[in-house]
Amino acid sequence: MKIYYFPMACSLADHIALQEAGVEFESERVDLGTKLTASGRNFREINAKGYVPALELDNGEVLTENIAILDWIASQFPKLGLPGEMGRTRLIEALTYISTELHRSFKPMWSSGSEQEMAEARAAILMRLEFLSEKFRGDYMFGENPSVADFYLFVMLLWAERYMLDVPKQLAIFRERMKSRAAVRVVMALEGLI
Amino acid sequence: MKIYYFPMACSLADHIALQEAGVEFESERVDLGTKLTASGRNFREINAKGYVPALELDNGEVLTENIAILDWIASQFPKLGLPGEMGRTRLIEALTYISTELHRSFKPMWSSGSEQEMAEARAAILMRLEFLSEKFRGDYMFGENPSVADFYLFVMLLWAERYMLDVPKQLAIFRERMKSRAAVRVVMALEGLI
Repeated sequence: MKIYYFPMACSLADHIALQEAGVEFESERVDLGTKLTASGRNFREINAKGYVPALELDNGEVLTENIAILDWIASQFPKLGLPGEMGRTRLIEALTYISTELHRSFKPMWSSGSEQEMAEARAAILMRLEFLSEKFRGDYMFGENPSVADFYLFVMLLWAERYMLDVPKQLAIFRERMKSRAAVRVVMALEGLI
Repeated sequence: MKIYYFPMACSLADHIALQEAGVEFESERVDLGTKLTASGRNFREINAKGYVPALELDNGEVLTENIAILDWIASQFPKLGLPGEMGRTRLIEALTYISTELHRSFKPMWSSGSEQEMAEARAAILMRLEFLSEKFRGDYMFGENPSVADFYLFVMLLWAERYMLDVPKQLAIFRERMKSRAAVRVVMALEGLI
């Protein structure tokens, strides 16, 4: 299988998830401007939507949308998901919150937001990070081991770092904990981030 | 179980899904300004996030986030989901696209967007509706029967109607088809929409 990514985009969460799963996989960088993959393919032929992540399975099927890909990886590698009858639902709930409330709040930071929009974005991001930090049940969101939701949250915290946002102390510690994981270091090096 | 809703919000999709499922359920309107439910409860005690939908299960657990609730309903009532090994993943993929690409594009329409933001929003909404209309596999998104993704798309098309957006012809027909379904008429009447 192959993950299509852009460095530091939310695809980093999927990239880390595959590395943490311990499965064999390939990864290929996409130029989001030209829509060409590193090997010169037209990325729109792989994902008509033109954005990352996209996960090409061994049977040729292509999955898109970060929530769907992360949930699928957790379904294949249960150590990256949540146990119990409601586990998958609670995981999707967390992924959705991170995507629709937190991730999207960053938009004014990378588009040309006004000063007021940037200030509102910072406030919204911090409020949502506070909410998540209060829910932590251990070293990771749901206990002593990371789920795919932690990988997505980690990417959001890297973005917060890039934009010099102060984050709740517990999440700053969590970010460092994540950075020190072997799989995370491998993927961050591969994406050229360290 | 009980669905907490605000009329015409994305919670309408969950409300319709429960009615289509044929299950017994209650529904309660939430005043999103005061954060009080119709019976006078503090909605933040039910869903700390303060937004709809929230689904209270019979065991007292509360589910939040539209994607997670719709996916959970489909998992309980498989006729509202997609069949096959990848069915749940493909459903989550569709729900995520509708949520993160289409739903969020409406934001400038109900917040005080500038003329330029409104024009950009209209263009983004139409582009995404075109994309979805090209994927239709029958009378509904995935064939001859509706899934929970159709209910979410239907709500987006009601919003498009409210803001007088021309939508692709196939989707205008789909919207009328949805409106004529018995379960949809029941729920729209209950929410005071017809």
